[in-house]
Amino acid sequence: MSDGFRLDEARALLLRTPRVLEAWLGGLPDAWLHVTEGASTWSPFDVLGHLIHGEETDWIPRARIILGDAADKTFPPFDRTAMFEASRGKSADVLLERFATLRAESVRTLDGWTLGDADLARRGVHPAFGEVTLRQLLATWTAHDLGHLAQVARAMAKRYREEVGPWRAYLSLMDWKD
Amino acid sequence: MSDGFRLDEARALLLRTPRVLEAWLGGLPDAWLHVTEGASTWSPFDVLGHLIHGEETDWIPRARIILGDAADKTFPPFDRTAMFEASRGKSADVLLERFATLRAESVRTLDGWTLGDADLARRGVHPAFGEVTLRQLLATWTAHDLGHLAQVARAMAKRYREEVGPWRAYLSLMDWKD
Repeated sequence: MSDGFRLDEARALLLRTPRVLEAWLGGLPDAWLHVTEGASTWSPFDVLGHLIHGEETDWIPRARIILGDAADKTFPPFDRTAMFEASRGKSADVLLERFATLRAESVRTLDGWTLGDADLARRGVHPAFGEVTLRQLLATWTAHDLGHLAQVARAMAKRYREEVGPWRAYLSLMDWKD
Repeated sequence: MSDGFRLDEARALLLRTPRVLEAWLGGLPDAWLHVTEGASTWSPFDVLGHLIHGEETDWIPRARIILGDAADKTFPPFDRTAMFEASRGKSADVLLERFATLRAESVRTLDGWTLGDADLARRGVHPAFGEVTLRQLLATWTAHDLGHLAQVARAMAKRYREEVGPWRAYLSLMDWKD
């Protein structure tokens, strides 16, 4: 267990992510929504679909496995690119609304569990990493949101890599890669 | 001139930044607002103050110099750390409101100029870089917002560097530095 993780603090960020994305991407020109950092990189629109897929198949479903009674607590692998198919033909506004709905449900589920320290220490099995705790899963869910918010900023910023001229030297985001 | 910059698109992002920060930081626990990445790095609260100082002394004031009639178009240097003093004793909510007010004024000023391509090609003199165009200044203003949004995400994510356990391997944001 780590002293740095508090469920109420993680929850405060998890609740806000859909609102942040709505404020940022709602009604934004397509040039920003669909910009990528090059081949095999994601646009803000792709990120939205990925976050939706995470709500549907990753975070709460994995927490359920940890908290459940099954003998085998191995998580199914998470498909990081499922959103390319699932988002096809949808608008960003539809995805924003879907994500907001799903995240609100996820947080309601989390609240309903009234997790204590003993619960947070329970374990599941990650298909690549082996044993992980519920606390680590919830910290990762939160950090994962933040990682993708930063990725949205980065994909958009790189669009102006040349346009900023000599200021590029001050904009380290332009050179950050995964 | 570059084909990648369109004023209406830049404006769409500039307008949204205060709303994004309000959705993200409004009412957020202090543990997130004041987290830094270590000595001499900025918290989300510090970033807010820095953005306010930019509205007051950097972006529109520099554009005014470019568009003005003075023979010497050298920008005064921008004080990147002025906010440490200016933000002292203020709440994040006060800073969020101040930034929203200032940014709205900045965008109104920008709109009032009805800038065309000839205006965007006009030049000023950056104290370190030499000649820069208004187009570069406006592209940098936009990218600068995005850089600091990514920085906010990064400062908060690093708080969970240890808490995420083995998932850290998937969270490249944790290892991104300026």
